[in-house]
Amino acid sequence: MCGIVGVSGPEHAAELAFLGLYALQHRGQEAAGICAVEDGQARLRREDGLVMEGFDDAAMQELRGRVALGHTRYSTAGGEGLVNAQPIVVRYHSGELALVHNGNLTNAQSLREELVREGALFRATVDSEVIVHLIARSRRANPDEQVHEALSRLTGAFSLLITIGDTLYAARDPWGYRPLVLGRLPDGWVLASETCALDLVRAEFVREVEPGEVLKIQDGELIPLPGLGRAARVQPCIFELVYFARPDSKVWGETVDRARREFGRQLAREHPVEADCVFSVPDSSNSAALGFSEESGIPFELALIRNHYVGRTFIHPTQAGRDFRVRIKYNPVREVIEGKRVVVVDDSLVRGTTSQGLVSLIREAGAKEVHFRVASPPVRSPCFYGIDMPTREELIGARLSVEEIRRKLDVDSLGYLSLEGMLGAVNGGRPFCTACFSGDYEAPLVDLERGLPVQAHC
Amino acid sequence: MCGIVGVSGPEHAAELAFLGLYALQHRGQEAAGICAVEDGQARLRREDGLVMEGFDDAAMQELRGRVALGHTRYSTAGGEGLVNAQPIVVRYHSGELALVHNGNLTNAQSLREELVREGALFRATVDSEVIVHLIARSRRANPDEQVHEALSRLTGAFSLLITIGDTLYAARDPWGYRPLVLGRLPDGWVLASETCALDLVRAEFVREVEPGEVLKIQDGELIPLPGLGRAARVQPCIFELVYFARPDSKVWGETVDRARREFGRQLAREHPVEADCVFSVPDSSNSAALGFSEESGIPFELALIRNHYVGRTFIHPTQAGRDFRVRIKYNPVREVIEGKRVVVVDDSLVRGTTSQGLVSLIREAGAKEVHFRVASPPVRSPCFYGIDMPTREELIGARLSVEEIRRKLDVDSLGYLSLEGMLGAVNGGRPFCTACFSGDYEAPLVDLERGLPVQAHC
Amino acid sequence: MCGIVGVSGPEHAAELAFLGLYALQHRGQEAAGICAVEDGQARLRREDGLVMEGFDDAAMQELRGRVALGHTRYSTAGGEGLVNAQPIVVRYHSGELALVHNGNLTNAQSLREELVREGALFRATVDSEVIVHLIARSRRANPDEQVHEALSRLTGAFSLLITIGDTLYAARDPWGYRPLVLGRLPDGWVLASETCALDLVRAEFVREVEPGEVLKIQDGELIPLPGLGRAARVQPCIFELVYFARPDSKVWGETVDRARREFGRQLAREHPVEADCVFSVPDSSNSAALGFSEESGIPFELALIRNHYVGRTFIHPTQAGRDFRVRIKYNPVREVIEGKRVVVVDDSLVRGTTSQGLVSLIREAGAKEVHFRVASPPVRSPCFYGIDMPTREELIGARLSVEEIRRKLDVDSLGYLSLEGMLGAVNGGRPFCTACFSGDYEAPLVDLERGLPVQAHC
Amino acid sequence: MCGIVGVSGPEHAAELAFLGLYALQHRGQEAAGICAVEDGQARLRREDGLVMEGFDDAAMQELRGRVALGHTRYSTAGGEGLVNAQPIVVRYHSGELALVHNGNLTNAQSLREELVREGALFRATVDSEVIVHLIARSRRANPDEQVHEALSRLTGAFSLLITIGDTLYAARDPWGYRPLVLGRLPDGWVLASETCALDLVRAEFVREVEPGEVLKIQDGELIPLPGLGRAARVQPCIFELVYFARPDSKVWGETVDRARREFGRQLAREHPVEADCVFSVPDSSNSAALGFSEESGIPFELALIRNHYVGRTFIHPTQAGRDFRVRIKYNPVREVIEGKRVVVVDDSLVRGTTSQGLVSLIREAGAKEVHFRVASPPVRSPCFYGIDMPTREELIGARLSVEEIRRKLDVDSLGYLSLEGMLGAVNGGRPFCTACFSGDYEAPLVDLERGLPVQAHC
Repeated sequence: MCGIVGVSGPEHAAELAFLGLYALQHRGQEAAGICAVEDGQARLRREDGLVMEGFDDAAMQELRGRVALGHTRYSTAGGEGLVNAQPIVVRYHSGELALVHNGNLTNAQSLREELVREGALFRATVDSEVIVHLIARSRRANPDEQVHEALSRLTGAFSLLITIGDTLYAARDPWGYRPLVLGRLPDGWVLASETCALDLVRAEFVREVEPGEVLKIQDGELIPLPGLGRAARVQPCIFELVYFARPDSKVWGETVDRARREFGRQLAREHPVEADCVFSVPDSSNSAALGFSEESGIPFELALIRNHYVGRTFIHPTQAGRDFRVRIKYNPVREVIEGKRVVVVDDSLVRGTTSQGLVSLIREAGAKEVHFRVASPPVRSPCFYGIDMPTREELIGARLSVEEIRRKLDVDSLGYLSLEGMLGAVNGGRPFCTACFSGDYEAPLVDLERGLPVQAHC
Repeated sequence: MCGIVGVSGPEHAAELAFLGLYALQHRGQEAAGICAVEDGQARLRREDGLVMEGFDDAAMQELRGRVALGHTRYSTAGGEGLVNAQPIVVRYHSGELALVHNGNLTNAQSLREELVREGALFRATVDSEVIVHLIARSRRANPDEQVHEALSRLTGAFSLLITIGDTLYAARDPWGYRPLVLGRLPDGWVLASETCALDLVRAEFVREVEPGEVLKIQDGELIPLPGLGRAARVQPCIFELVYFARPDSKVWGETVDRARREFGRQLAREHPVEADCVFSVPDSSNSAALGFSEESGIPFELALIRNHYVGRTFIHPTQAGRDFRVRIKYNPVREVIEGKRVVVVDDSLVRGTTSQGLVSLIREAGAKEVHFRVASPPVRSPCFYGIDMPTREELIGARLSVEEIRRKLDVDSLGYLSLEGMLGAVNGGRPFCTACFSGDYEAPLVDLERGLPVQAHC
Repeated sequence: MCGIVGVSGPEHAAELAFLGLYALQHRGQEAAGICAVEDGQARLRREDGLVMEGFDDAAMQELRGRVALGHTRYSTAGGEGLVNAQPIVVRYHSGELALVHNGNLTNAQSLREELVREGALFRATVDSEVIVHLIARSRRANPDEQVHEALSRLTGAFSLLITIGDTLYAARDPWGYRPLVLGRLPDGWVLASETCALDLVRAEFVREVEPGEVLKIQDGELIPLPGLGRAARVQPCIFELVYFARPDSKVWGETVDRARREFGRQLAREHPVEADCVFSVPDSSNSAALGFSEESGIPFELALIRNHYVGRTFIHPTQAGRDFRVRIKYNPVREVIEGKRVVVVDDSLVRGTTSQGLVSLIREAGAKEVHFRVASPPVRSPCFYGIDMPTREELIGARLSVEEIRRKLDVDSLGYLSLEGMLGAVNGGRPFCTACFSGDYEAPLVDLERGLPVQAHC
Repeated sequence: MCGIVGVSGPEHAAELAFLGLYALQHRGQEAAGICAVEDGQARLRREDGLVMEGFDDAAMQELRGRVALGHTRYSTAGGEGLVNAQPIVVRYHSGELALVHNGNLTNAQSLREELVREGALFRATVDSEVIVHLIARSRRANPDEQVHEALSRLTGAFSLLITIGDTLYAARDPWGYRPLVLGRLPDGWVLASETCALDLVRAEFVREVEPGEVLKIQDGELIPLPGLGRAARVQPCIFELVYFARPDSKVWGETVDRARREFGRQLAREHPVEADCVFSVPDSSNSAALGFSEESGIPFELALIRNHYVGRTFIHPTQAGRDFRVRIKYNPVREVIEGKRVVVVDDSLVRGTTSQGLVSLIREAGAKEVHFRVASPPVRSPCFYGIDMPTREELIGARLSVEEIRRKLDVDSLGYLSLEGMLGAVNGGRPFCTACFSGDYEAPLVDLERGLPVQAHC
């Protein structure tokens, strides 16, 4: 997963891109990149780690110009330092081109093979690189058409921001897998993965970019371009609502907090329990736990304290107890838990290892009964549309039955939100991509079906 | 304010000190230091910033030995990089001596003047340096007596951990201003500012070090030494419960979360209001807001989302809008707030500037009414016992009446917890230092009364 | 100008490349890069500054494999940090390709235009990038032929080392502008810009790579490939002998020290003078000054002491006296100079600013007469074959007559070595490129004639 | 060994101190420190490595004020990073005190024991720290007398520069072991270890500070203070002339280049040989080799090329051949050496390991005969007055006879300059410290005689 932002208009566009990335930091902490365009010339800076750490005032002052792109990278896939970081910046026959991409192409490897055969040179392993090659190789007369031709060849998930010279393009794949929102500034436009980025730069939320839509911003004007077509069944990723997006963002027309609250309420209806208190695994399941409490009437508690100073590279091998990685992040409030029948609400269960550690902490703190509630269905299938997930073998929900998982977690009861319950809790009848829960993959898995390795994605 | 930790016994004592500092990171993010003693030789490392950032594996492997001290520094006072950072390590006639100090001496400058007249050389401006000079100049026969003689000359607040050779000393001032707890390890002992540090190193909580008590740990044995006397009125700092300590810690015999919950309940009783929801300023007032909700029956909400990626050096001058520093840290969830009568609970009001920014954010998000509740009395007097506070002129509670503050914050109502209510909410009848609220200073303000400048403290 | 090195065979090829670069450090201090190939996979590291500074043990251990390339970069042209640094590493249809280049193509921009039109993406502005595109776009069946086809399209100066998978290629342009020598290791082969690199890795000098020759090293075997043809008039750069190469290297079949000694002797014959001592501008004109002394019988002295600690970024604006940059680098030995008639021998005169500063230092030190001798002809024309030189306007020899220069330098007499004298001093009759002195450009200046900007070169 | 510089008067004194250190960089590359005093307040910066690397413009701008001290550190003794680096800066009853020291006290440990008994705290192991304690503990009424009293207690070698508030003190020990020269600026004064530092800051050389002299500079005025007495036999270090000082400096009333030239001439007289050429080990024996050539008539050659890019931390264990450290630094010019009978002149022979490596390089390059000449007597005794030398066991001249050394070096003949010849070559009859050659120690070796460990020195 990644966060992207694009700005066109204000004098120091890169500063707004910086703030946008800061608001989107939860979408990727591995690397950050900003590219600013001045008079058609792109200046790029990419750094490992958080945007706050890598971009000081001196760095920002270099990034001049009224157009800027930003990217925060989640995955370590691809490795090799910053080679796979974004924005990607290249020079081609129509000028300097920069690109940021959130999503994962399902035909990247197939396209890459074809391009390589034709003599294209690849620097990175990230699939976004094929897009810039497709644009550069287009025989169309102008950048608008080159971009259109290139994007038409892509299958899978992409929310894209591209600059060619001083022009900014924004596009989403026909299925609309990954979010991208449009905001209005007094003196320009902002595009970002989530509305929380618009809030911080004080842009007014206008609307989502639509599935298959291609927009262009030039000289302050927003111009709709011929689109890529809208898929018959659009597929906005429901996992954004479950876990990924910030609760204060509006995603798929919903405030994330409200959706999670509803998941929690529905979960309480589906899996009621007698208990003394309910609490979250902070901060990702706060909303769901509060919803559970509201519906069930069981008092809401703050029973786990999260240490926010966890560094990225902390590994002291001598401390490698089974639960240490959990213990370094969470500490229980014994007085709240001791002697109680507790309900722990988590947003989702992927590998299950953190949950195991948490339950053992909670038991040590004296809980009489531990009831585990998950505000989404079992994760059973890998995501090919941009969410970093482990292989199917590592997914606890793919390997074990609910009862087996209950025993493994050592809890008195375990309840998952049903797929129907989850879909019913969000704006009714609208289609979503639920592939990780249901295994239903809508956009063709071209590479996978040809037996090609799946690429590093974002 | 600072956090301190001392370890004696385990093979890699410094690793436990590291973990202890990590758990105490909220007590100081400015600098971190660890000193490890092996065969009487002290190795020291001090770094700016967080302990996770400054101490990698290679650094930790250098810090060998079964005895270690750690310190996290809060204040930037004293400046000049690491000169004022701790542990302080010196060589004197009885060997290598290391010291960490939490608190603030009220006669530091007077002692310093005397020592300087006698030819003592000072490197730093931090008041802790006088303690090592007093120990080194003692004419007593052995370290135990030298430490005792030196500490007897100190007035004010000190929780101290000292190593001389491989021996570890722990002491608290007679008033007991600052916390210090003792924990048992399978193979040794840990002393730390808060119990959350004991939890992370899996030490068993034994008891607080008593006011005026001096302990010594040698060869695995805990030996009580002659004490400094217990003050007639002990003065544990109530601000630790209000704001400073972690909610999962036990301080002054109370779980901090429980105390704050009670503050919130009492606040609801003292300042009831008709409203649609109550929420906290995360994370410091979470417990109090929950208590307020429980007592008042007004639903608890999560209406402010905190960005935990705030860096230490973020200043982009062009963004310097009045509320920008608030905005970069908090974002409201509009859907929760819009059209509602809201109660905002904060733990305390010091300068009032952050609260002003927050209220303006909350109003922008569409709140119909904003009722501000503070889970402690007005802060009216500076602290001379170790809490970093602004000067009296900057304390909003010292300058303005409650009604004036209400207008300044632009809220519909404002209510502070009463001093009596606060004291009644914690274990009854026990004395506390409430100087910042009441102006009652128990330990003599020696330097201040002599017109000497107050030193950088910790 | 740049230095390049390639190694094939030994277990840790990158370590030998490192040593080779260290020996070639005088050919470029701006950036250093090493790429090592293991099982066809190339690992790359490029760092600003000296090779000693950028490549520590940890870095070297990453660079595994029996094949390695190295590059030291002289020019800051192209800017943008390391984007223009080498080795260039790309993936194309025949595997991973790495390239280092010393020289300057005269048709780079023309080729680039053509490639860009076809959709090629360029990352850097350095002309070497066109070569990798030409190889990748070749339709030939195998790497040998692809390399041959690509190199056949190049005009101008290139000494190239290329790896494709584990195969190492070496080539020189048909004119043989820039040096490249072949050395034998017990377990492999080394190619380098100068023999001093062979000395340090203890390789046995075998021979120069010939103009137009293409070699391939695979599995320890040296295989001659079809060449590019040898130019009718080969053009080894005489400026390598004048200034660039190290005196202990053998270049163009000559020990550089011997050639410079001869230049000095011939200079003494052409411009005799009555004087008390002769000295060099250390270290570049040591050999020439010694030759002058030997021929003239005037005693050789060490009158200027050079400070070798000069950093790359030293600019203290307040010190910006006219001669400060000279003064920080050289200090005269007053006792040697005072009251004497001195001969100063320099290797060449480009801008003339350093010489002016030196003369003023020497006069201040009390010289009675200053006779300036230059061991090469006036530099009058820019180099398009790889030597970084200022524009024609900045070349003092292009703007002023010898008498005008003498007055500008404020010396009692000035003598340049004649072109004929210079050519006569080296192995007789053999052609050289003397374009910077004579303006005779042999390889066609394709881009220049088409009015295209000349690219950053190396 | 170390280099020191002090400046009083000019507006940005620290910039001149910086330049002074740059000129004195050969006296120490381990660490550099500058302290600047403004209105009695001292600002300090100390960095590992070269002064050019550690002090950029931003750093220099912090170092404001008209008084400054600088220090370059040679030794790694004492270890522990910058703890032992200078200037030492402390606060004591008369204000802020800063100190730089070149030399080695022979009673440092005895004084330290006494100070520690009295309760003094030491941070570092460097012996200079005792001096600041002695000043701070003096009961005298004013800084002038405190400094005098403190220095009177010192035995051994010290050239000192001290600031107390804005006053600058300069002093040399009664024997005058280490150099210290005084220079005049248009707007102030400079003191430095060598005259080359005066040259670079364009100060006029005034005179040496005399043995036992104490000077004070205040408000632009140079004031002689009561001295420490001049020893009956002054002891200027002859090794400064042999090796340490820069050839363009004037030391002990001699231009170093001239002294070394004379050593070379006398060496030629004492140890004549039939040979084809003579050369130096650049750059330290350039002058001596030239003198040898002048006297003997054997042609002077440049046969060894030195690589000046050697980094400080270069250790690649796999390259650890016996001669590798020599090979990385020097490369022979084969054409000059091959088939010749050569004379190699070195300045001194300490351990002999480098010379062994050099001889083997020279033999490999084809020398027919190798005659080794050393322009000083055998080094047989350690220095206790400030030159870093190995223990007696490691001194080849202490362990082996001249014939044994000749065989060890594998040379055809070996000749050392005699002690008498050396003394005769410099200004006649004047006494020198020749302890490292003769074992005659003039200043009492107090600590050594009491069996105390000798301290880290400078």
